[in-house]
Amino acid sequence: MTTNQPPLWRRAVAELLGTSLLVMVVVGSGIAAQQLSPNDVGLQLLQNSTATVLGLTVLILVFGPVSGAHFNPVVSLVDWILGRRSGTGLTLPELGTYVVVQTLGAIGGSVVANAMYDVGTSISSKDRATGGHLLGEVVATAGLILLIFALAATKRGVLAAPAVGAYIGAAYWFTSSTSFANPAVTVGRIFSDTFAGIAPGSVPSFVIAQLIGAAAGLGLLLVLFPSAARAADDVVLPHQVDKANS
Amino acid sequence: MTTNQPPLWRRAVAELLGTSLLVMVVVGSGIAAQQLSPNDVGLQLLQNSTATVLGLTVLILVFGPVSGAHFNPVVSLVDWILGRRSGTGLTLPELGTYVVVQTLGAIGGSVVANAMYDVGTSISSKDRATGGHLLGEVVATAGLILLIFALAATKRGVLAAPAVGAYIGAAYWFTSSTSFANPAVTVGRIFSDTFAGIAPGSVPSFVIAQLIGAAAGLGLLLVLFPSAARAADDVVLPHQVDKANS
Amino acid sequence: MTTNQPPLWRRAVAELLGTSLLVMVVVGSGIAAQQLSPNDVGLQLLQNSTATVLGLTVLILVFGPVSGAHFNPVVSLVDWILGRRSGTGLTLPELGTYVVVQTLGAIGGSVVANAMYDVGTSISSKDRATGGHLLGEVVATAGLILLIFALAATKRGVLAAPAVGAYIGAAYWFTSSTSFANPAVTVGRIFSDTFAGIAPGSVPSFVIAQLIGAAAGLGLLLVLFPSAARAADDVVLPHQVDKANS
Amino acid sequence: MTTNQPPLWRRAVAELLGTSLLVMVVVGSGIAAQQLSPNDVGLQLLQNSTATVLGLTVLILVFGPVSGAHFNPVVSLVDWILGRRSGTGLTLPELGTYVVVQTLGAIGGSVVANAMYDVGTSISSKDRATGGHLLGEVVATAGLILLIFALAATKRGVLAAPAVGAYIGAAYWFTSSTSFANPAVTVGRIFSDTFAGIAPGSVPSFVIAQLIGAAAGLGLLLVLFPSAARAADDVVLPHQVDKANS
Repeated sequence: MTTNQPPLWRRAVAELLGTSLLVMVVVGSGIAAQQLSPNDVGLQLLQNSTATVLGLTVLILVFGPVSGAHFNPVVSLVDWILGRRSGTGLTLPELGTYVVVQTLGAIGGSVVANAMYDVGTSISSKDRATGGHLLGEVVATAGLILLIFALAATKRGVLAAPAVGAYIGAAYWFTSSTSFANPAVTVGRIFSDTFAGIAPGSVPSFVIAQLIGAAAGLGLLLVLFPSAARAADDVVLPHQVDKANS
Repeated sequence: MTTNQPPLWRRAVAELLGTSLLVMVVVGSGIAAQQLSPNDVGLQLLQNSTATVLGLTVLILVFGPVSGAHFNPVVSLVDWILGRRSGTGLTLPELGTYVVVQTLGAIGGSVVANAMYDVGTSISSKDRATGGHLLGEVVATAGLILLIFALAATKRGVLAAPAVGAYIGAAYWFTSSTSFANPAVTVGRIFSDTFAGIAPGSVPSFVIAQLIGAAAGLGLLLVLFPSAARAADDVVLPHQVDKANS
Repeated sequence: MTTNQPPLWRRAVAELLGTSLLVMVVVGSGIAAQQLSPNDVGLQLLQNSTATVLGLTVLILVFGPVSGAHFNPVVSLVDWILGRRSGTGLTLPELGTYVVVQTLGAIGGSVVANAMYDVGTSISSKDRATGGHLLGEVVATAGLILLIFALAATKRGVLAAPAVGAYIGAAYWFTSSTSFANPAVTVGRIFSDTFAGIAPGSVPSFVIAQLIGAAAGLGLLLVLFPSAARAADDVVLPHQVDKANS
Repeated sequence: MTTNQPPLWRRAVAELLGTSLLVMVVVGSGIAAQQLSPNDVGLQLLQNSTATVLGLTVLILVFGPVSGAHFNPVVSLVDWILGRRSGTGLTLPELGTYVVVQTLGAIGGSVVANAMYDVGTSISSKDRATGGHLLGEVVATAGLILLIFALAATKRGVLAAPAVGAYIGAAYWFTSSTSFANPAVTVGRIFSDTFAGIAPGSVPSFVIAQLIGAAAGLGLLLVLFPSAARAADDVVLPHQVDKANS
């Protein structure tokens, strides 16, 4: 852990708020799309993915300097794993804090999105766990981990915001599962029975697939970028923290 | 106030013209969308939001070095509030000037858009004030203020143009209100009874929601970026003013 | 004229080829859109404008270092006017050369686009000259000139490629005329009786509107950026010419 | 060949994986588009091209520092040709390795995309070889080669990722063939009888057209950027290789 980071409570606020807004973007734009373009599911997904590309990019820009803008337990997990090797990255208690607030934020994001659209918060009934979809989650998560930590390993963390946004926008389309690739967001999306929802029964297999994907992504990273472990401190954005924030 | 800014009259011209063009983009592309894709409101919104992302980004690039490219009374208001703490930013008379010319520019933008499409200028009959939409305005404006002043606080004002464009593009979709988030633009959109219009009766509650959102955004900013007050001078774009302009 | 520019013949090749490819993008993507989405003209325009944003950005990137990537007689004209004041920019014979090759390139682009789609080259029958459309051309061209030369005046010519691409993408939608804003491209689009075509009878009034818009844009530029005349040499991209090219 | 490049085996892994993911993006998003928007082929292509712009940009960012992110035999071929003149670039055995792994990766990408969508892998029956389409491939490939090596020749290789993504996004629309422009990807797309597939009988003429286009692009490059040969070492991204990777 670098010494000029903001205190943990402030980073936790950033992860909570950022993950909440991310789910608000995903669920809210999904509801809008479903209501406004009822006759073409592909058009709905295009609207949903376009909003997510733009929104996720902005959220990483805003919260990156505070918390690293992980918004995703598997990103925080890999940050911890790589940091153990290099003596940087999140500590285990910090990892726990990140995962808890990410999950709570994601649930809150669903609730606010439902409220904005005057849709009651209820549990999604959309089953998503098929073999093809789980393979999609493995591929999507592996690619996400490889992308984020490859940028860090090559000192290009400043590109993470548009690159991660673009990646998820592509992965909505090229993976059959529409690329959840994030256990916290997956849990949050339980709480909206709308376009972007997921039935609770599909969640465990999705999370397992995401963990497998994260492991695969980490393996590919170490093959392609052997220096990655030493660079984990830069994830997601370099912590260009204003001194007054620390 | 830094000493190398352009004179107020020139900044006022920039805010007038920039806000006018912003409303021209929003209203004009809304009319085009409505005429060309009459059978799918979601597709209309996708066309409208895509044009706005691109147009707003360009307008901030063009007018940023002259006036800061606020185009929005709540942005100017927060700039003044933060500037009082740090001894920089707009003065109160400058704030008044900005708000007046932004509002006049917005109205003018509607009128020109109507003229380009041979649509008479008339008052919109589109009621938009529902509870969900007002919550949407609070969220949208809070996010906008947080974004703009977080970039300034972290010395990344140069990213404001694409970031604000992207944010509004996402907020068109994830907020139920399609993210007006701007009192001047809200007033301007009264004057076109087309896709992007708003009935006068909905305007007061929209503006109140935007002010509440601005306050919320400012509060979040100070929690996450305690140094923000001192950086207000950089909003929206650093005033990289060519000396010959001053 | 700076001394390290490529020879005129090479710049002429760049303007010819670049304008040709620009029209190929506009006309070709218009034909594709018309054939593939026959039931929704708005969707066709979205496809056409998306392709143009991407293509125009790339063309300015490629040809900017050689010729400045004007691709547009009114851009070259304003470059000459501003250059007369500052002793830089195009000379009058160079201006003539640019305009001629831009126009020839534009016509060639239509012919190749037609050939790629196995559509015969014939004269467009699409009348476009209405009062609203001509106002649209004035606005579109004024904005284009202001954008390009404002970037140059503030030493941000390096942003011209994405900014001009984004501007045209917005202007396709917010102006009623779909923003030709370019006399050479207007002439070139006569030669395809497809989505992007224009009937010869509409061309003179379009070109006059574009010249009026260019004058308006130049006037606004000098009001907002009084130093613009001295910076014309940087248009569109700074001539970062590899010495071996001169 | 510069001396601080990663070993060939690691570059081969990068080309294999990157080309595989590129085809996964193209084929996978094509299947999604076809399934979700069955009534509008133009909308399908918009979804397919949008995913490809985003995905290709990210893939070049990730793999560029390892292998140059060619993902395309004609790019590797031109890199070798230019390198012979300057004593840099790929050697002939390296070129052979690149072409083989690119082709294998492309086939693997189709197979995985099919598996994600629970679509059996079978040979495409989509004939694409018409005169217009072959002209489209010549134009598309010439433009691609000119773009990539013009950026390298002007020391702007860092822009290759978004620029190549944008170019392909435009070329999907302005060329009648939807711009394969890549022999390896063309072969890979044989193995999916879906939206993005190509019948084996169309492949030889497509590849020949691509080779002709590459030659045309190389010729234009040498006319416009005579210094290009000496800069080939920078393609696609400058090899900003972390020393630990070498």
